Amino acid sequence: MPASAASASPLHDLERKLREEIPLARAMDLRAAGYDGQALTLAAPLPPNINDKGCAFGGSLASLMTLAGWGLVRLQLQARGSDADVYVADSSIRYLAPVWGDFSAVARPLEGESFDAFLDTLQSRGRARIGIVCEVPLPDGTAAASLAARFVAIDPARVRAAAP
Amino acid sequence: MPASAASASPLHDLERKLREEIPLARAMDLRAAGYDGQALTLAAPLPPNINDKGCAFGGSLASLMTLAGWGLVRLQLQARGSDADVYVADSSIRYLAPVWGDFSAVARPLEGESFDAFLDTLQSRGRARIGIVCEVPLPDGTAAASLAARFVAIDPARVRAAAP
Repeated sequence: MPASAASASPLHDLERKLREEIPLARAMDLRAAGYDGQALTLAAPLPPNINDKGCAFGGSLASLMTLAGWGLVRLQLQARGSDADVYVADSSIRYLAPVWGDFSAVARPLEGESFDAFLDTLQSRGRARIGIVCEVPLPDGTAAASLAARFVAIDPARVRAAAP
Repeated sequence: MPASAASASPLHDLERKLREEIPLARAMDLRAAGYDGQALTLAAPLPPNINDKGCAFGGSLASLMTLAGWGLVRLQLQARGSDADVYVADSSIRYLAPVWGDFSAVARPLEGESFDAFLDTLQSRGRARIGIVCEVPLPDGTAAASLAARFVAIDPARVRAAAP
């Protein structure tokens, strides 16, 4: 798919939303670095995300990976015309190697997961769950950190209709 | 143990270290709220940690819980005369309920874990691992989020001695 104003816009909107609505994303100086329709990459510079040892703070790695997963689910829902709320339900993180420079997090659906099936469930039940994996790649291609997380989407109209 | 300048000091030093050396901890406005020799409580106000839905950002909950675990391991090592480096190795987080106000994270050793055994291993092998659990409590006593994590301590003198 060629780059175009239309295809760049959801990524730009996501970065703006994250930075405007989540002060910590702004403090991290988070950037939306790329989206190919399957994988979302968020990036952050080292200086605001440093720890006491001079490498990247684990909380920053966890936050960037979680936001990449969250953002990927949002982009996929938006592309299918849904503005359901998205929440992280649970996550497992492995910290594999220290990160001594600027870093990024690349989120993809967990193998076997389908965004089409996710949206079908959301439309029929008002609520759906999907597994996402995310990695912080190192220059040599190995991962400095990895996350596996489940995200829940809830259709606010359906939830409001069901409220007492 | 009665409160004293001596017993209050490690907690104050921890807060100062976290805020001075980790910019994101300062951005979160992290505070060291209490330490009874077993459990460490860190706290943060909602406004700098808010998300797009107006409740606490999952990355802030994850960061505060991870730092509480890390801080607990540091305090326990310091009390035993060790200044080994402490790293988070892996963690599992469950996000159970939204947090609509200021929040705290309470870290304790995982059941069955012993800081004395942890230090013995560190001293004999230069490296040791310990399990920590942490919760973000809600006013009703239930947990808004929980973390189970493993932390690794490495004795820098031993690592330097072993380096080629």
